[in-house]
Amino acid sequence: MSQPLRIGMIGYGFMGRVHTNAYKRVNDFFPELKYRPILQAVCGRDETKVKAFAEQWGYASHETDWQQLVAREDIDAVDICVPNNLHKEIAIAVAKAGKMVLCEKPLAMDVAGGEEMCQAVEDAGVANTVWYNYRRIPAVSLAKQLVDEGKLGRIYHYRSNFLQDWTIATDVPQGGAATWRLDSAAAGSGVTGDLLAHCIDTAIWLNGSIKDVSAMTETFVKERMHAETKKVESVGIDDACAFMCHFENGSLGLFESTRYARGHKALYTLEINGANASIRWDLHDLNRLEYFDHADDSNVRGWRSIHITEGEMPYMDKWWVPGLSIGYEHSFIHQVADFLANLESGQPTSPTFREALETQAVCDAVLKSGSERAWVNL
Amino acid sequence: MSQPLRIGMIGYGFMGRVHTNAYKRVNDFFPELKYRPILQAVCGRDETKVKAFAEQWGYASHETDWQQLVAREDIDAVDICVPNNLHKEIAIAVAKAGKMVLCEKPLAMDVAGGEEMCQAVEDAGVANTVWYNYRRIPAVSLAKQLVDEGKLGRIYHYRSNFLQDWTIATDVPQGGAATWRLDSAAAGSGVTGDLLAHCIDTAIWLNGSIKDVSAMTETFVKERMHAETKKVESVGIDDACAFMCHFENGSLGLFESTRYARGHKALYTLEINGANASIRWDLHDLNRLEYFDHADDSNVRGWRSIHITEGEMPYMDKWWVPGLSIGYEHSFIHQVADFLANLESGQPTSPTFREALETQAVCDAVLKSGSERAWVNL
Amino acid sequence: MSQPLRIGMIGYGFMGRVHTNAYKRVNDFFPELKYRPILQAVCGRDETKVKAFAEQWGYASHETDWQQLVAREDIDAVDICVPNNLHKEIAIAVAKAGKMVLCEKPLAMDVAGGEEMCQAVEDAGVANTVWYNYRRIPAVSLAKQLVDEGKLGRIYHYRSNFLQDWTIATDVPQGGAATWRLDSAAAGSGVTGDLLAHCIDTAIWLNGSIKDVSAMTETFVKERMHAETKKVESVGIDDACAFMCHFENGSLGLFESTRYARGHKALYTLEINGANASIRWDLHDLNRLEYFDHADDSNVRGWRSIHITEGEMPYMDKWWVPGLSIGYEHSFIHQVADFLANLESGQPTSPTFREALETQAVCDAVLKSGSERAWVNL
Amino acid sequence: MSQPLRIGMIGYGFMGRVHTNAYKRVNDFFPELKYRPILQAVCGRDETKVKAFAEQWGYASHETDWQQLVAREDIDAVDICVPNNLHKEIAIAVAKAGKMVLCEKPLAMDVAGGEEMCQAVEDAGVANTVWYNYRRIPAVSLAKQLVDEGKLGRIYHYRSNFLQDWTIATDVPQGGAATWRLDSAAAGSGVTGDLLAHCIDTAIWLNGSIKDVSAMTETFVKERMHAETKKVESVGIDDACAFMCHFENGSLGLFESTRYARGHKALYTLEINGANASIRWDLHDLNRLEYFDHADDSNVRGWRSIHITEGEMPYMDKWWVPGLSIGYEHSFIHQVADFLANLESGQPTSPTFREALETQAVCDAVLKSGSERAWVNL
Repeated sequence: MSQPLRIGMIGYGFMGRVHTNAYKRVNDFFPELKYRPILQAVCGRDETKVKAFAEQWGYASHETDWQQLVAREDIDAVDICVPNNLHKEIAIAVAKAGKMVLCEKPLAMDVAGGEEMCQAVEDAGVANTVWYNYRRIPAVSLAKQLVDEGKLGRIYHYRSNFLQDWTIATDVPQGGAATWRLDSAAAGSGVTGDLLAHCIDTAIWLNGSIKDVSAMTETFVKERMHAETKKVESVGIDDACAFMCHFENGSLGLFESTRYARGHKALYTLEINGANASIRWDLHDLNRLEYFDHADDSNVRGWRSIHITEGEMPYMDKWWVPGLSIGYEHSFIHQVADFLANLESGQPTSPTFREALETQAVCDAVLKSGSERAWVNL
Repeated sequence: MSQPLRIGMIGYGFMGRVHTNAYKRVNDFFPELKYRPILQAVCGRDETKVKAFAEQWGYASHETDWQQLVAREDIDAVDICVPNNLHKEIAIAVAKAGKMVLCEKPLAMDVAGGEEMCQAVEDAGVANTVWYNYRRIPAVSLAKQLVDEGKLGRIYHYRSNFLQDWTIATDVPQGGAATWRLDSAAAGSGVTGDLLAHCIDTAIWLNGSIKDVSAMTETFVKERMHAETKKVESVGIDDACAFMCHFENGSLGLFESTRYARGHKALYTLEINGANASIRWDLHDLNRLEYFDHADDSNVRGWRSIHITEGEMPYMDKWWVPGLSIGYEHSFIHQVADFLANLESGQPTSPTFREALETQAVCDAVLKSGSERAWVNL
Repeated sequence: MSQPLRIGMIGYGFMGRVHTNAYKRVNDFFPELKYRPILQAVCGRDETKVKAFAEQWGYASHETDWQQLVAREDIDAVDICVPNNLHKEIAIAVAKAGKMVLCEKPLAMDVAGGEEMCQAVEDAGVANTVWYNYRRIPAVSLAKQLVDEGKLGRIYHYRSNFLQDWTIATDVPQGGAATWRLDSAAAGSGVTGDLLAHCIDTAIWLNGSIKDVSAMTETFVKERMHAETKKVESVGIDDACAFMCHFENGSLGLFESTRYARGHKALYTLEINGANASIRWDLHDLNRLEYFDHADDSNVRGWRSIHITEGEMPYMDKWWVPGLSIGYEHSFIHQVADFLANLESGQPTSPTFREALETQAVCDAVLKSGSERAWVNL
Repeated sequence: MSQPLRIGMIGYGFMGRVHTNAYKRVNDFFPELKYRPILQAVCGRDETKVKAFAEQWGYASHETDWQQLVAREDIDAVDICVPNNLHKEIAIAVAKAGKMVLCEKPLAMDVAGGEEMCQAVEDAGVANTVWYNYRRIPAVSLAKQLVDEGKLGRIYHYRSNFLQDWTIATDVPQGGAATWRLDSAAAGSGVTGDLLAHCIDTAIWLNGSIKDVSAMTETFVKERMHAETKKVESVGIDDACAFMCHFENGSLGLFESTRYARGHKALYTLEINGANASIRWDLHDLNRLEYFDHADDSNVRGWRSIHITEGEMPYMDKWWVPGLSIGYEHSFIHQVADFLANLESGQPTSPTFREALETQAVCDAVLKSGSERAWVNL
């Protein structure tokens, strides 16, 4: 018999929808799981809106005070889907309440805050994970397998971008529910925490730790109206950020993120060049992995475009048949599935808070380097 | 308040999973719908298996005799997901029972059978639709919009393929639950009814009726073991089929389907060439539509690769944000959503049985032409 | 020391330029060749124009009467670059004069004419070749190697298109120097002889002989002004042609050509599906060959995009370094190089007139089938 | 009547072949040019080899001492195709001899040397140009047109890579005729001068001057055998180099080059993101330009893949017909054509030595920044 895992969700914006969908679908496609998420409660400050969300998605109840939700005895795990500046306080409270915690990325506003969060979950001994969902796009998971099998040989280069274009218009406001990502008070940083954090998490996972960074940050639009105060205020976030780095394994890294790359919506790309083989992937064509194997016969050697829909490929035995693709949302379902399976086996679910703290440290170093125009060691 | 629509599903194979998923998800993403599908019962001959399916997916009950299911008063709509040779008898019974019917494609074993089915649903006045799901891939729906807006001008060419490679191995059996598509008794035809039927449905929808056809069919592997009898039997289906045709609008059509195209898993492609613009699409990269507009300035004219993730594009306001893609399964959710919305407004849901009969007629003509090696008029 | 091969060129249109360029460049890049083409004379009816062409390109002399050119003792080989209706008479005269002959494709207006030409060159024992240049695009030559090595296994499918869009405008005239390809008197046929002939030549070379065909032809624009008479005349050529066929090896073929495919300029494509591997190529990206090898490990199996610039690949040791591509014109240089090398070794240069006659026979059968709406055996 | 321009070529390696080919072909395809290059003399130290080269390519004479060649009265223009460390001395001598000079890139070993070269040609008033050939790939020239027309609007980002993989094997030697690019004494730098110099030249041309840079350089293989001495020596060049920069126009730049990117042979890429439109290009598919125009209707907006073969596109009226592509070598022919046309009209040919000096300055700054691990202003 399946065992319920009662979820309390804090926040019901874009990520709230994505996570909720994942909880609702996971057991249909991973029937072997012992645990079954139950949508027990969702929390938001605006009662009308949170109630409507609860009704649409089938939450059994709603709350308007997150501390109430955390205190409820009928909640096993809390999912934190609120702006970054609220992660720390909530996560620590959840841990202290002895509940599992699943936290949106980036982990914290900075390393110091993240360290407190790690301490809290480790002291409490509660299961914890951070939603760096892109690890579980099947193509990216396959990349990890290939790296782990040593197919690439010595790594020379890692490069990764995350390009968007949605803030080119100067009349996009900052702050508020829809655009809190442009407000430094809520988001901490701009593209670094929002987008580069994904690139960095995957990079560390695939290629190991980063030793030092040299970054360049830019704020193209200096002032934007605040969505709530309606006042024009100085923009505190980074609109664009690029950095170079050295990995511990001796390879070179190059990363870039921006919201001013016209024509790109969510173009998360990564490429790894090894002595024996190379790998490329991008989020716009997420069902494909490109792979170049130098061991192929020289007259038929080329980049392979692998359509990630075969049952042998990570997670794909759960879905349809070869040729039929899945989408963005499935990466979250996979993370929930792994979280539930790990609960059963007593394993942590990567990335844990502690693992995500390493990404936070790189983000902090990047911002410091951008500000100081100097290399920063980690 | 939402109103339940109690579904009785007959069959629980690959299509049973896909449809069930669609019923479960539609209201989460289309909250404005009045109707809410309820998984009332699923039917299959093997009680152990159908019970397990019901439990996994959350059906309230199960049946082992489809006539029992059709007779139940607590079922509003019956979904037919069984091999083609069973469509007619079940659909007619459902119609006579006054229930709505959603039938897997192809509609029937032949036009005569399909005509009986059309008569039955029309006499009964019940809502009916056939699962030609690819119309509701957003890129394909957008193609329809562009055609209807007249963007392409006079149409000269329509070409469409559906290429697979899964039956190259001679030890794939025929018949039985997993491979009934290779058994002519169950499937009626091979790639023509299974794959070309999709191409034809979309073609008629986008480009109008077909006047005549000249086809070539082939059975590469002449004998296969039957999965149930374990006897080697002659193969009665077409392994590959190509045909040329004239459309009523004066354009030329070229279609091909096979299960022997090494490297292609479910490569459904279509291309339309008009005097002013052309369109291309394929299922392996289903989130992209390629579009060439001759009206573009001549020095920057090229095929546009449109990433179908913007809110302005068909169905995409229901999902995520620009750049984040959806998959195969969503086309079924869209068809359910349209079916439910049409119930509310009293509209038929395309393709109805009557509309799908036209595709059946083309399939019949194709098979006849292939057999007779001659042009066949429609 | 190099030995001169004195070329007499008849015609100086588009193909005249391409061939002339090939003669001028071949020894620079194939220094091992014994023979060195000399631009001895070019012939055209309009003296002013042919003289200007001779001066621009460096021909030592010009003629206005092709019979004069054929009669000259200082000519070793004659290149026929005039409209199709003139091939036969000239080629036979050249052969009778004991000179080598290089003839533009298609060989003739029909099989009967082509047979006379074959007899003439064979009786005279003169070297002869037909300019089916696409065989010598390095990617296509590599495809031939892979087929010959048996990499593909049993062949199931061959498909090939040649798509253009330049005659969509109804004010394109027929006849005259620039548009003789629209004039059936000069061209014999439309896309069949002009474009499909290329597809058929390559297909026979790669996949063997064709047994039977069923074709569909269309003339979309029924009347066009004649460029010389300025009268509106009925159009006698095929604007579009598609055909299905069986190859001797049991595989199925599907071919299409048109000048009404908006967005395609010279999109010659080919694909071969074998039991073990598949190959794709197109002329718009002529430096790439796509290759799918089923023997690859299943989790990294995909279409390889082979950039044909490595020294191991056909002809590519003659050009630049890996990554640096060549273009359309080089296929002609390769054919001249092979012709010259074969002269030295006493081998025929494929396709000879006799080999090109087989393509002619398929073209004739295609046109007959299109006209009669019936299968035609070869 | 055409007027001869007598070329003296110094060096006959890879670039010597490419330039020679350009001189030989230019008048065939640009018949309107007044000047006609004459292959008067080629110079190299090894008489056997240089004589063979002269014979193969048709040079009228050869020299083994470059000073002899420079002194000859029958030479109008000298082309410098020798390793970088020889550029300065030769170029200054050529200028002092009052001859035109065409110099391979990079201009010099450093800015100081380059400045001397500029002074020399400017003092002498001789025509001069540097072979940054990629500006004249038609797709890149079209990019320039689009930028100049203001199609992109305010520029936010410029990114460019040049990726190769040919030095991964540790047994590739340094020094000598074939591998002087790995020898810092001959080459000055590694990928910075060899590859990034191209990226920088194009970037300045398209996007204006660079203000400051922060670079990271790496030498992966620390020791290599010298091809001539056969001794294992320390490697002095940069194997890989990445840098960030600010352009004067406020946009951010990101550049990377390496010879350790497995799977890439000569993957020169560039992308520009403007407020209104974006452009992408890469050398492996040099006949395509990708263009995204935000002004397109939102439901059909996408990256256009422009096949650069239309007569309206830069230089393409000189070549074949739409759909038929050209290659790498043509960029050099275009540069010669422009040089000759500019001679006639009295215009300088971009990039002049002076213009190339700006690229040199960026290269110097990049190397300094990489060495000092700090931002360097220009």
